[in-house]
Amino acid sequence: MSAYYVIVTFMRIEILAVGTELLLGHIVNTNAAWLSQELAKIGVDVFFHSTIGDNPARIKDALALARCRSDGVIVTGGLGPTEDDVTTAVIAEFARVPLIFHSQILKKIKNRFRHRKIAMIKLNERQAYLPKEAREIPNSTGTAPGFILRLPFLIIALPGVPREMKPMFLETIRPFLRKQGGPKSVIISKTVRTSGLPESTIAARVRKWLKLEPPVTVGIYAHLGEVDLRVMAKGKTEKEANRAIGKIEKEIMPKIKDVFFGIDEETLESNVVNRLIAKKKTLAVAESCTGGLLTHRITNVSGSSKALMLGLVTYSYESKTTLLGVPADLLKKKGAVNREIASVMAQRVRQTANTTFGIGITGIAGPTGGTKKKPVGLVYVALATPQKTYCSELFLKGSREEIKWQATQNALNGLRLELAKM
Amino acid sequence: MSAYYVIVTFMRIEILAVGTELLLGHIVNTNAAWLSQELAKIGVDVFFHSTIGDNPARIKDALALARCRSDGVIVTGGLGPTEDDVTTAVIAEFARVPLIFHSQILKKIKNRFRHRKIAMIKLNERQAYLPKEAREIPNSTGTAPGFILRLPFLIIALPGVPREMKPMFLETIRPFLRKQGGPKSVIISKTVRTSGLPESTIAARVRKWLKLEPPVTVGIYAHLGEVDLRVMAKGKTEKEANRAIGKIEKEIMPKIKDVFFGIDEETLESNVVNRLIAKKKTLAVAESCTGGLLTHRITNVSGSSKALMLGLVTYSYESKTTLLGVPADLLKKKGAVNREIASVMAQRVRQTANTTFGIGITGIAGPTGGTKKKPVGLVYVALATPQKTYCSELFLKGSREEIKWQATQNALNGLRLELAKM
Repeated sequence: MSAYYVIVTFMRIEILAVGTELLLGHIVNTNAAWLSQELAKIGVDVFFHSTIGDNPARIKDALALARCRSDGVIVTGGLGPTEDDVTTAVIAEFARVPLIFHSQILKKIKNRFRHRKIAMIKLNERQAYLPKEAREIPNSTGTAPGFILRLPFLIIALPGVPREMKPMFLETIRPFLRKQGGPKSVIISKTVRTSGLPESTIAARVRKWLKLEPPVTVGIYAHLGEVDLRVMAKGKTEKEANRAIGKIEKEIMPKIKDVFFGIDEETLESNVVNRLIAKKKTLAVAESCTGGLLTHRITNVSGSSKALMLGLVTYSYESKTTLLGVPADLLKKKGAVNREIASVMAQRVRQTANTTFGIGITGIAGPTGGTKKKPVGLVYVALATPQKTYCSELFLKGSREEIKWQATQNALNGLRLELAKM
Repeated sequence: MSAYYVIVTFMRIEILAVGTELLLGHIVNTNAAWLSQELAKIGVDVFFHSTIGDNPARIKDALALARCRSDGVIVTGGLGPTEDDVTTAVIAEFARVPLIFHSQILKKIKNRFRHRKIAMIKLNERQAYLPKEAREIPNSTGTAPGFILRLPFLIIALPGVPREMKPMFLETIRPFLRKQGGPKSVIISKTVRTSGLPESTIAARVRKWLKLEPPVTVGIYAHLGEVDLRVMAKGKTEKEANRAIGKIEKEIMPKIKDVFFGIDEETLESNVVNRLIAKKKTLAVAESCTGGLLTHRITNVSGSSKALMLGLVTYSYESKTTLLGVPADLLKKKGAVNREIASVMAQRVRQTANTTFGIGITGIAGPTGGTKKKPVGLVYVALATPQKTYCSELFLKGSREEIKWQATQNALNGLRLELAKM
């Protein structure tokens, strides 16, 4: 089982996102969560995230506030070439240093434009200026360089575009922060993931551990069709923290054995795909209301082509009869949403693709199409195995996409349980 | 064409998210963006988002800071039943009022547990306490009530779970804020969405408008396979702002006519599905490397069952030959990733489902499976129409999921262009 090891508490950094589009809600700030995870891994404490617009006065206020309460700040956004992008100039003003032109940065920007065969505009030259004493952070995927400035309050500026920001953090900022000194301790975090029971039931089973206080704590987090338990332990050494977490894990595991499916990054789909591959079993899927989502999730797992042979989205009656051989009179008599149809879909797709397992899903994802007898959210999930066919009847709540998601969670979990028996 | 109308600048509210799991990066704060969009629509200015942990002292500091710079704050998170959840108690302390027990709230909580057939635990009683003078915000989907407290500084507390928070905002907070007075002006925002050209090319075409200053501005935002132009106008009346936006839109439209696909919430998939339905045309899809994502996106559009007849994910060679009749010797000779296979897939799925259009996609989504001749990101997207078959060769960059996404963007955009000709 995996776990990740982190060195903590030698430094406190906050994250400041700059961008009016964030305040208008046009984009979600995913950078803060990503940076926080990365900073936690190298033991940097993050106590504050803030977001402000492209407004010089408010950016300066935010920097002043950050200096009061943290050792440093990572500013994301506002490094672009347009007049809106004021982060660099404001930081220079805040630090009371002039902006310095760097000819080698301009050269890099020019090269990038040449490489992309796009004419460079005058505005891009603004990106060649950095505050005096700032160290450039090279940007391998875009034009805007970032920078590190020590006042000694630490200011790190990075672009707001995640695909530029992330490699810059990993290549330059992470090694830089790791080199900073201070008293160190070790924390381990391990997420134990379950599916098949509601949060309250899991909480009742592990109530005792949820009350634990640091240095070892257990938290519970519910998602659609999943409940996570996160165990965190802090210690003077890796060994000490590791021992603490191992002890708790050992205590908890028997309580959730029937619903446990993975640790940390492991998903239901990766669990299922990896088990199928390991056991040399194969799968075919016939979807109606989930419309390809189950197949999409399975194929997100690299290597899934070894296990998944076929996915069918039989959205029309005709495709259900022609391709799957679902009896037309059954469809006519009982409609497409019932236990029999789901079971026949699972059996026929299994036969068609000549696989170990077949999954059939039919239901009403909404928001329209529901009736009193067959409401929106009614979904049948069938699993055909070499021995027999199982079928679950689900009453799901939520939006069209949430209903699709929960139905695929159920299908994956059913197959997981079946594979666990083998 | 749609547009949304908003009344602005009578009030400034900031958003404060409480939750240690946010600072650890375990969850992304999507509430702030959602609330900001909703607040913008009713004309409330949002200048700050902040996130802090479940720490009483820091929550109190954050409230004090918010009072200095805003008229009110919406606090999300920390209303749960556990000892970690301190938001309500801290707000009462900040406001210097006691917590008051509400028997009718406890009754509601008890009913909810009874309804869900789950035993209520003693801890849940904590949720029946609100700060004195606070007005309860009913929670129709969970146990934690929110509340509104006027000091006169406005404090609104909502749960952190989006599926509970959103209906509470829409049902209670939005009408409440709308009733607040103050000088009003009107803003209109309209997003003009394009696909098929890179950001730099679109930017060059509309450079003149990107330089506009308020009251009318145009912003450009790039996503994977899409570029948005956002036009915003502010005026004393709805008519005035509307006229300003109409003028800009009229000027810009001819510059992007070939790539324009929708306004505001319209997506490539909704554009394609709605056009198919309006023109009474049908579609079938055969996917290999995109693994069901295209079908999933299409079926996310309510009503898509009228247009999409069949989706096939032919992940194995065998399913390509048996179900689609892709010649086995062609597969043997040239492999599964080339122009011919994509075209045959598109043609055969169209024939099989007896539809107007067929789409075939084959490629290498990575991260493994690439060769020097056929690198990761090489994707062929074919569109079979009643007259002929088109095929594009794409060299895509990014993660497995990003490559899948971009390939489906290309497929949808190709079908959009074909439908536009009809």
